[in-house]
Amino acid sequence: PVSKLPHIGTTIFTIMSKMATDEGAINLSQGFPGFGADPVLLELVANYTKNGFNQYSPMSGIPGLRAVLAEKTKITQGYLPNSEDEVTIVSGATEAIFCAVTAIIEEGDEVIVLEPAYDSYEPAITLNKGIPIYVPLNPFDFSVDWDKVKDAIGPKTKAIMTNSPHNPSGYVWTKEDVDTLAELVQETRIYIISDEVYEHITFDNRPHFSLGAHQDLRDRTFVCGSFGKTFHVTGWKIGYCIAPKPLTLEFRRIHQYVTFSTVTPIQFALAEYLEVPDRYLSIPAFYERKRNVFAEGLKQTELEFVPSQGSFFQVARYGHLSKISDRLLAERMTKELKVACIPVSVFYSTKKDDHLIRFCFAKEESELQEALERLKNLQ
Amino acid sequence: PVSKLPHIGTTIFTIMSKMATDEGAINLSQGFPGFGADPVLLELVANYTKNGFNQYSPMSGIPGLRAVLAEKTKITQGYLPNSEDEVTIVSGATEAIFCAVTAIIEEGDEVIVLEPAYDSYEPAITLNKGIPIYVPLNPFDFSVDWDKVKDAIGPKTKAIMTNSPHNPSGYVWTKEDVDTLAELVQETRIYIISDEVYEHITFDNRPHFSLGAHQDLRDRTFVCGSFGKTFHVTGWKIGYCIAPKPLTLEFRRIHQYVTFSTVTPIQFALAEYLEVPDRYLSIPAFYERKRNVFAEGLKQTELEFVPSQGSFFQVARYGHLSKISDRLLAERMTKELKVACIPVSVFYSTKKDDHLIRFCFAKEESELQEALERLKNLQ
Ligand SMILES: CSCCC(=O)C(=O)O
Ligand SMILES: CSCCC(=O)C(=O)O
Repeated sequence: PVSKLPHIGTTIFTIMSKMATDEGAINLSQGFPGFGADPVLLELVANYTKNGFNQYSPMSGIPGLRAVLAEKTKITQGYLPNSEDEVTIVSGATEAIFCAVTAIIEEGDEVIVLEPAYDSYEPAITLNKGIPIYVPLNPFDFSVDWDKVKDAIGPKTKAIMTNSPHNPSGYVWTKEDVDTLAELVQETRIYIISDEVYEHITFDNRPHFSLGAHQDLRDRTFVCGSFGKTFHVTGWKIGYCIAPKPLTLEFRRIHQYVTFSTVTPIQFALAEYLEVPDRYLSIPAFYERKRNVFAEGLKQTELEFVPSQGSFFQVARYGHLSKISDRLLAERMTKELKVACIPVSVFYSTKKDDHLIRFCFAKEESELQEALERLKNLQ
Repeated sequence: PVSKLPHIGTTIFTIMSKMATDEGAINLSQGFPGFGADPVLLELVANYTKNGFNQYSPMSGIPGLRAVLAEKTKITQGYLPNSEDEVTIVSGATEAIFCAVTAIIEEGDEVIVLEPAYDSYEPAITLNKGIPIYVPLNPFDFSVDWDKVKDAIGPKTKAIMTNSPHNPSGYVWTKEDVDTLAELVQETRIYIISDEVYEHITFDNRPHFSLGAHQDLRDRTFVCGSFGKTFHVTGWKIGYCIAPKPLTLEFRRIHQYVTFSTVTPIQFALAEYLEVPDRYLSIPAFYERKRNVFAEGLKQTELEFVPSQGSFFQVARYGHLSKISDRLLAERMTKELKVACIPVSVFYSTKKDDHLIRFCFAKEESELQEALERLKNLQ
């Protein structure tokens, strides 16, 4: 068949994780935790499975999980979505993003994408025959250049994809960022698809401002979240979308025919687990220790970096050491230093190479220490 | 937003299941088992979860599950797909169908749909701007009228959606059906998307002929299957697609951005569970007992029917008793007789009402007996 996505090959995440395995390298490339989840949560899944909670859930998710998720939103963001009509459980944030894009993007619609950007936004837009309009984030702190966003907005702009805390950079939007976006779109009918999968991972007491929590943005925003990222279980593929009722209606019309529903015993387990807010409120401190260990160690290397503000990623620059491509450096590091990372150029539509690499520090401290020891040999 | 699927409301499955719950009726409507899965399988999921198999699986599924699924195909269908390049694990057969349709259907492409048809085919086609061309199955045995299929094929025909064992009717394609299809498409470039989720549920020693097993069809066919349907765990949302390498390549390019991957601990559990072929080879006999109990009991009622050949559904006709719409009958049966069923008209694009209702007999025998007792009061 003629390919609809002819440019799509094996993702860098697959390539680097495989190379790490083949080379026996420490894998700081693909973003997944190197440690286990809370045994309490695992036990809950085991029990709901063994106790027979294994048939179809409602298409929108079990009411208990939707309700406690709305409650979590109230606790962390100060507003309470209507769990009946505004919350949908899906098979991972990737599905949430796909369904949100599919719900609203039609042929010729422009979608503003701030880059570097996660790799699933563009194919979702392209499959719906939308046109991604790329706006570069500021080098090298990856803050938003709002003038550039403003310039990119035109009569065909249908949506803006946002992502805070940001993958790959860890930049966390400020209140001012959110307010500026709200102002920019106020007189327009532009939708926002907000990838907030790292919502619970921010450092140095930085709050996460969900775009769904902003009074002037709520009516136009799909918030896409991930239980897998928050609770160290990326392989469970369970996430959600929070959006106002008319948007949720269209979102569900897509979701219903994309996957229909999501794994039932895990929904019941999460519904019970989320009843204790400390289970997600304790996440920032948990990751901040790792961020600190990694940043402290990185200071002992030749790499240049600013400590990550959020997410479980740290970007670093090696341009003063070598001018080889970031892909080649990532490969060499994996093979020679035995530490795998992700070249940041893959997050750009143009594959722009600023000599940056991304590390995932969602690993045991001992593993991070060992990786840091090895990185000292980078020169 | 302008809806891409303005005609989509709440599915009949949701409506009838809810009505059954509200009315305290026996729920023979939505297709899901009313009994538990094998405790061995549940224990495996519990153990893989607790033992930390909770991070991303490879995008195409874990190699172990793909390999044992290929082996199952060899055992049941006599051919061995290449598990590396031809087998993909996805988040349920609905996702498999969605990704297969999305991989190949472009604006204006015609897709032949034999109806009555499962409700997810049309939205998948419509979202990709394909045009469903409906061909009615023969009333009332739901065999295929191959002359009509032949007449429907034209220069714009891109694909044919097939489904055997058939939902809602239980019709199982014969070897002749498969050969006839192969002949019809031989000189064309038409693709086949074959919904085979009930592959392991056929009765009276009828074999299931996978379209992927036919030498002249294999190169053009996406076989969509479901572990949930086979192992009584519809809520796990795990299925697969088997297709030749060039088709699998395009299929994965879509799947990668629709859900990326599928729940890891369940994949490991199924990989181990499938190692014992009797676990799926024993399924037909298991369901045949239920089919027999249900058919025997149904003979004591006023309903007209031919015993189901496969799937866990039984269609019955009430047209000689009453001319009220099948939707109204289903509602009355749920409220008055306390037995919920599905009106067959919902499976037709035209909502054609032949006074047929569908029962799901994937229930404990005692529950079936009680339902049958109540159905004796239908007149
Ligand atoms: C789905 S694999 C990619 C995981 C991830 O979010 C990342 O590494 O950026
Ligand atoms: C996804 S709900 C529908 C279940 C089913 O396959 C049916 O009842 O036909």
